[in-house]
Amino acid sequence: MQKNLGKIAGVWPMPVLMIATYDEDGTVNVMNAAWGQVCDTDKLILILDGTHKTVANIRRRKAFTVALADWRHLAEADYFGTVSGNQVPDKFAMTGLVARKSEFVDAPVVEAFPFVMECELAEELPSIEGFVGRIVNAAADESVLDENGKVDPAKLGAIAFDPFRHGYYAIGEKVGRAWHDGRKFIR
Amino acid sequence: MQKNLGKIAGVWPMPVLMIATYDEDGTVNVMNAAWGQVCDTDKLILILDGTHKTVANIRRRKAFTVALADWRHLAEADYFGTVSGNQVPDKFAMTGLVARKSEFVDAPVVEAFPFVMECELAEELPSIEGFVGRIVNAAADESVLDENGKVDPAKLGAIAFDPFRHGYYAIGEKVGRAWHDGRKFIR
Repeated sequence: MQKNLGKIAGVWPMPVLMIATYDEDGTVNVMNAAWGQVCDTDKLILILDGTHKTVANIRRRKAFTVALADWRHLAEADYFGTVSGNQVPDKFAMTGLVARKSEFVDAPVVEAFPFVMECELAEELPSIEGFVGRIVNAAADESVLDENGKVDPAKLGAIAFDPFRHGYYAIGEKVGRAWHDGRKFIR
Repeated sequence: MQKNLGKIAGVWPMPVLMIATYDEDGTVNVMNAAWGQVCDTDKLILILDGTHKTVANIRRRKAFTVALADWRHLAEADYFGTVSGNQVPDKFAMTGLVARKSEFVDAPVVEAFPFVMECELAEELPSIEGFVGRIVNAAADESVLDENGKVDPAKLGAIAFDPFRHGYYAIGEKVGRAWHDGRKFIR
């Protein structure tokens, strides 16, 4: 029996994305965003309220990086989502994390996070406050690669954002694929 | 030590979304899509290749529903993602699942899935093949609500799509929030 609940935007699981940019003076800024998704084989979209310092930074430098937060850095990830770079200019420095300049785009890469996508701003979509990034390169820590050099999600330790209660969840076990022959559904 | 991997679109976790529409003759069609995200407090965006039958259906009826696939229906969810409604007109019927007409929009609600968002087409964003839906109502099975009538993600049993290897994962345990005072990061 289903119950009507009204207007709930409950896409679940959501990722916990760490968006890193440079301020006007080159200071590293990192924010936490759940409203992001792949929108092409080499593009992703972020939905970002215009008040974020990150938005001004992206418009100025035309670049950003998007890393996946992992449970090992949950404290830092949540802090990046709670504290604003507008109020706390040394927000990033306070965490003690280290960033290097991306080899590919004019944005920082936070070294602690296990997987990062380095993006150029491809397009803005004002009607949804969307920022489309072209992924120029992705980089991963060697510890999260499998024997063929591919990213292994089980090793990443990424976390999921809960849109219903604003908490974080770990990712669980791999579950089997389905039983069908590509046309017929078979029980 | 991070390794460059080239252009990998690895937003993780991705949801496993069940998009339900009516065909031109009223037949129920359901597809599986991972490229979807919330884009406002009452909106979501789907990125859908124009060849899908779902796209024609959405344009005709200006409506669709988006449900979260759960592990109990992994077989059906994967089937909806593997078999095309263009090739198999009775795709939905083959699963034996049941759909009712939404009370709110001109689209079907698949009763087996534990949480569904009923959407009107708000806008198309052609540059990214985006379809923005205005969420008119959400409905959930009573079994996934907590004692306050809110959706409990731990009860949903939703699954995550793996963009690196194209498999499915269960969601794990809730993990604690971070230790900071809202301004300073504290170890």
